[in-house]
Amino acid sequence: MALVNEHFLKLPGNYLFADIAKRVNAFKTTHRQADVISLGIGDVTQPLCPAVIEALHRATDEMGTRQGFRGYGPEQGYDFLREAILKNDFLPRGIHLDIDEIFINDGAKSDTGNIQELIRWDNTVGVTDPIYPVYLDSNAMIGRAGVKDEDGRWSNVVYLPCNAENGFVPALPDRRVDVIYLCYPNNPTGTVLTKEELHKWVSYALHNDTLIFYDAAYQAYIQDDNIPHSIYEIRGARKCAVEFHSYSKTAGFTGVRCGYTIVPKELTAATLTGERIPLNPLWLRRQSTKFNGTSYLSQRAAEAIYTPEGKEQVRATIGYYMQNAALLLSTFRSLGFEVYGGENAPYVWMRTPAGSDSWKFFEEMLYGAHVVCTPGVGFGPSGEGYVRFTAFGSHEQTAEALERITRWMTV
Amino acid sequence: MALVNEHFLKLPGNYLFADIAKRVNAFKTTHRQADVISLGIGDVTQPLCPAVIEALHRATDEMGTRQGFRGYGPEQGYDFLREAILKNDFLPRGIHLDIDEIFINDGAKSDTGNIQELIRWDNTVGVTDPIYPVYLDSNAMIGRAGVKDEDGRWSNVVYLPCNAENGFVPALPDRRVDVIYLCYPNNPTGTVLTKEELHKWVSYALHNDTLIFYDAAYQAYIQDDNIPHSIYEIRGARKCAVEFHSYSKTAGFTGVRCGYTIVPKELTAATLTGERIPLNPLWLRRQSTKFNGTSYLSQRAAEAIYTPEGKEQVRATIGYYMQNAALLLSTFRSLGFEVYGGENAPYVWMRTPAGSDSWKFFEEMLYGAHVVCTPGVGFGPSGEGYVRFTAFGSHEQTAEALERITRWMTV
Repeated sequence: MALVNEHFLKLPGNYLFADIAKRVNAFKTTHRQADVISLGIGDVTQPLCPAVIEALHRATDEMGTRQGFRGYGPEQGYDFLREAILKNDFLPRGIHLDIDEIFINDGAKSDTGNIQELIRWDNTVGVTDPIYPVYLDSNAMIGRAGVKDEDGRWSNVVYLPCNAENGFVPALPDRRVDVIYLCYPNNPTGTVLTKEELHKWVSYALHNDTLIFYDAAYQAYIQDDNIPHSIYEIRGARKCAVEFHSYSKTAGFTGVRCGYTIVPKELTAATLTGERIPLNPLWLRRQSTKFNGTSYLSQRAAEAIYTPEGKEQVRATIGYYMQNAALLLSTFRSLGFEVYGGENAPYVWMRTPAGSDSWKFFEEMLYGAHVVCTPGVGFGPSGEGYVRFTAFGSHEQTAEALERITRWMTV
Repeated sequence: MALVNEHFLKLPGNYLFADIAKRVNAFKTTHRQADVISLGIGDVTQPLCPAVIEALHRATDEMGTRQGFRGYGPEQGYDFLREAILKNDFLPRGIHLDIDEIFINDGAKSDTGNIQELIRWDNTVGVTDPIYPVYLDSNAMIGRAGVKDEDGRWSNVVYLPCNAENGFVPALPDRRVDVIYLCYPNNPTGTVLTKEELHKWVSYALHNDTLIFYDAAYQAYIQDDNIPHSIYEIRGARKCAVEFHSYSKTAGFTGVRCGYTIVPKELTAATLTGERIPLNPLWLRRQSTKFNGTSYLSQRAAEAIYTPEGKEQVRATIGYYMQNAALLLSTFRSLGFEVYGGENAPYVWMRTPAGSDSWKFFEEMLYGAHVVCTPGVGFGPSGEGYVRFTAFGSHEQTAEALERITRWMTV
């Protein structure tokens, strides 16, 4: 009898955003006239910048000629892109990487979901809470998360609450964990860690032989100088951290699919007998077995954002979204809401009135203002009493959504 | 202590084709003047067809405008492509699929590697031998394959030899297995199963509650009428089979990355208590958690091959490669080699002289004729004594390679 992987059955039926889409569709079928504005899922709205469009046309033309055609690329990505990453994303911050430490992918979601394949099924997992659902769901699918209790907490997971009370700075775990997921600038709270705070995490990891899976997908939104763009800005991080980058939010690539992962050569995990195994060749083995490289077109598109024009155009779009973030913050504050994030990140994290149920608030705002947010509890138990808004709408839609919320709140 | 997934350490260090590339590079550094022709890795060489190029330009232009821009697509793919697949790849063969049974991906390698996540870690695995390495490597990485013996055989895997002696038609397993991987037209042997032969497999699966993972990546190369293009041409297959398709070989998408997987709604696997769990929603959960959809551009490109012009252009390219296959077959036969496949598939499977060591023959031909093939043993123990040639070269390169081999053989 072919047996199913029963760990899947412990998961909620839907991925969070599929669940939201379902509820929004239910609303739409009963309110056909309503024009719903979504500030829910973190998807961008502005077109690809001209430098990227030009690169895509050029790469397309190449693919139509015998001389220019490219078949399978290297599973770990083309050197032209990996070199551009080295020179632009790391060298200016004093970080020296080897080209073989960079793995191009089809977006950070795949790699943040797949990275756990490299570690034993029974390693303990630590997460800040609330958190991007992929980290825990991917561990749950293989049984590593354990079983779920009534509060939605997994038995083999250590939760590190981030809330208004601790200023969204997670305390170090009170016991050791084998791996920990950190995401800064944070999804969903939009908050950041300073270099000093991140330094504590690297020290903890080195001291406890803990692996850090560091998601830097939103680093392009950092405005303040003291906020690290990469964990490798911290001494010693090469020995304890994998880092994930994405072009999705940096350059509007959510539909183009490209990102990258850094697996330093010094990074190791242990066998049961204590032998240290480098993770870089293991990740290469994983990728060359279960992945066939990222589209050539997407890689040429990504390369284009490192040209002088590309850089300027990408910066302008990020500035555009950060104006939305500022408007969200100021409007919510003027309405008397407690809001966080939004200064070095495209997310604004809002406390619901009196910390009420976040799915209930989501539904009330959907039905009352025709605006979609993301219920905080969807990101973990400590997200209860909060909702997330994204700054990725157009100016017009963001302003319109805020007007509706203002009207709805002040009726 | 963060512990490594020790199953990875049981694998050979390199993926087969990485290993070949390494040996070819070693040759090139000592023979700088040599112009090596590769008929090794199954990568295409002809440019994308005009219909695809046009679609890519159009989609690129859309992505550069506010109105046309597309962000995240559905994780399971856009309806425009799924509908084209239904209407063109299945309906004409009398196969009725639901659109939700089709999952667009970034190529068949990812999904044939990932599909095993849905089943328990201790299910037994059956494979025809020789076989595409991804099937076993992906099972080995999670421990399902067991341990490897001296002959390179995994302890929890049932091998079904395919060789000249049995006409490359695998016998049904002499015991039951939980899942079995079939690939037809076959990679690497280039051989096919008739409808009658495939019918036996479906009956076996239904009788034994076995899941079939059916890789149809090369179906576009079938020339004979009695050879099934899809396992769903066989009654009952919807209850026992997942099927994988790819545009890589159909339309030269090895650098574009697009394919699809069919998971029928009737398909189930059991829990330990005997409950039947449908696999379609589980696969959707897997994909929406660890995958973020295929590039919009790649999906528009794939849609274009279903237009009248696209179909004609794709057919012409396949015809071009099949001319190479015919030339490989006739030349090798005239040289006195035993060759198989190549009539309904882009691969020619050749017995080495007196069934000698396939890595040794690979090296001899590389150094003697400067032509690269793939050693059969890289595809499994029963591949020893054979090598694989691909028909994906240009006419000129294929002809030149065959001239060199002829010269080398007749010296």
